[in-house]
Amino acid sequence: LPAIASLDQIKRALDINTLIGDIERGFVAYSRGETVVPPVGYLAFDAPNAGDVHIKYGYIRGEEFWVVKIASGFPGNAGRGIPANNGLMLLFRQDTGELATILLDEGHLTDVRTAVAGAIAAKFLASKVERIGVLGTGVQARLQVQMLSLVSPCRDVVVWGRATDRVALYERDMTALGYYVRVAASTRDVAAACNLIVTTTAARTSLLASADVRPGTHITAMGADAPGKQELDPALVARADVLVADSRSQCLDHGELAHSARAKLIDPARVRELGEFISDRSLGRRSSDQITIADLTGVAVQDIQIATHVHRRLQY
Amino acid sequence: LPAIASLDQIKRALDINTLIGDIERGFVAYSRGETVVPPVGYLAFDAPNAGDVHIKYGYIRGEEFWVVKIASGFPGNAGRGIPANNGLMLLFRQDTGELATILLDEGHLTDVRTAVAGAIAAKFLASKVERIGVLGTGVQARLQVQMLSLVSPCRDVVVWGRATDRVALYERDMTALGYYVRVAASTRDVAAACNLIVTTTAARTSLLASADVRPGTHITAMGADAPGKQELDPALVARADVLVADSRSQCLDHGELAHSARAKLIDPARVRELGEFISDRSLGRRSSDQITIADLTGVAVQDIQIATHVHRRLQY
Repeated sequence: LPAIASLDQIKRALDINTLIGDIERGFVAYSRGETVVPPVGYLAFDAPNAGDVHIKYGYIRGEEFWVVKIASGFPGNAGRGIPANNGLMLLFRQDTGELATILLDEGHLTDVRTAVAGAIAAKFLASKVERIGVLGTGVQARLQVQMLSLVSPCRDVVVWGRATDRVALYERDMTALGYYVRVAASTRDVAAACNLIVTTTAARTSLLASADVRPGTHITAMGADAPGKQELDPALVARADVLVADSRSQCLDHGELAHSARAKLIDPARVRELGEFISDRSLGRRSSDQITIADLTGVAVQDIQIATHVHRRLQY
Repeated sequence: LPAIASLDQIKRALDINTLIGDIERGFVAYSRGETVVPPVGYLAFDAPNAGDVHIKYGYIRGEEFWVVKIASGFPGNAGRGIPANNGLMLLFRQDTGELATILLDEGHLTDVRTAVAGAIAAKFLASKVERIGVLGTGVQARLQVQMLSLVSPCRDVVVWGRATDRVALYERDMTALGYYVRVAASTRDVAAACNLIVTTTAARTSLLASADVRPGTHITAMGADAPGKQELDPALVARADVLVADSRSQCLDHGELAHSARAKLIDPARVRELGEFISDRSLGRRSSDQITIADLTGVAVQDIQIATHVHRRLQY
């Protein structure tokens, strides 16, 4: 029988310090065209409860495994004491097709690989971080900040969220984790205080105006991952000196950059991929007053890499 | 943790007599448009070994589970003592998205549900079976005959295959299972002796000529399941009185019927679906001299139904 790992075992197996390199190598392979990643499979449910499922799968040529990730979101679960997001990953051997490991991560590895991508973007694009600004108060608002500790010693956080009770919970939880957290009354206050901003909301119109953003700011926008979602002022995207996408095609199609591209405010040819910045450090920030924006929509190579990372570290 | 079942446990849980009804209900739901079955996911490998993977997934509206099947074929495995075909099925709850059961069936359930479809086609289309003709000597050449015992008491088999050693193995194995097996020198001899013929080969040109087939014969053609594969003379398909597809769209696109449809030898409107015959018995054979052809390409609803069947019968 193949190995099967529970969420607890998976959490113990994760080593964030080596994971960041594994995921960086994944982005490089993706941007070099060394990955095979077919279109995402999708299932939607409207009864008895609304929900949807994404099936992502693929592999890096020449590596050991191919990976299938099945991730579900059933928002109504929350009211019944069941997590809304769930999922698992399956690793199979490239040489024989055999199933190697079942990772019952319940969606946690997706959260982690998403946050690690934010840390990678900051590593290659941000100036020395004075203060971390966060829009949103959910899982990514927390994990993105925690993963930034891999690339910056900054522990000062300025958070903004719509729901005051959730902001208060965020402040309490992150303070307990050793962060110095200040609550901002507006996104403008966040932008005034911070030179690194992570946007993690489900917003559908701009939250962050161009005029409010200081020169030298790096922004990682990861909330907009589907058509219709938007967090940044298209004028801010147009003003940015450096535009980076985890996947150029995805970001221009349904990420944050899609809005400014569709409005012809940016030349799509300006958009480079994160994997290019990782393999060529000369592409990064050129001065301390450039504005840089990383648009993260999530690519299957992150799943491939984190699943392989966990598999290799698991002690059964 | 979700339940996880090995191939042995799955084999013990299968109850073929109730499975046939479960799969019939699946075909009916499919033909009534009650299923949600997105396009099949596909991965191909060329190094280090050639192989491919199909990911089928979907659900029947209003039922308890949705199902994902991952099936791989790595032909080079055989030389290394590893099965060429492999796979697993995963059942998830429609109401919450939660994983219910992992069925490590190694591809066996695909073999069984494919053979059961042949028995269903015979049940609704064949005359009283005098003798069962089989083209091919592989897994389906065996299982199709075995599953026919659900719908006919006939135990007389006439087999034809290209490789004499494999024909001899077939004869030995099926004789041991209680069948009376005769080896035919040609497909013409099969057709002369039998009024039910199952074609299970990977042929890419017609094996069975129209002139050789007796009036009253029912043919289940299940070898042609991809572009380029073909087992029957298009003239035979054109001559048939009744044409049945498991999936009209699939069979006309890449099944046996695709060849005669493309050559405009049949009117696609003549092709009915197996689910229609199951729910309306008046559609079946009208006389003992009609020729009926069932083209089976495999539909995900069969996977959904067999996975649910096994899940419900498993005793953990």
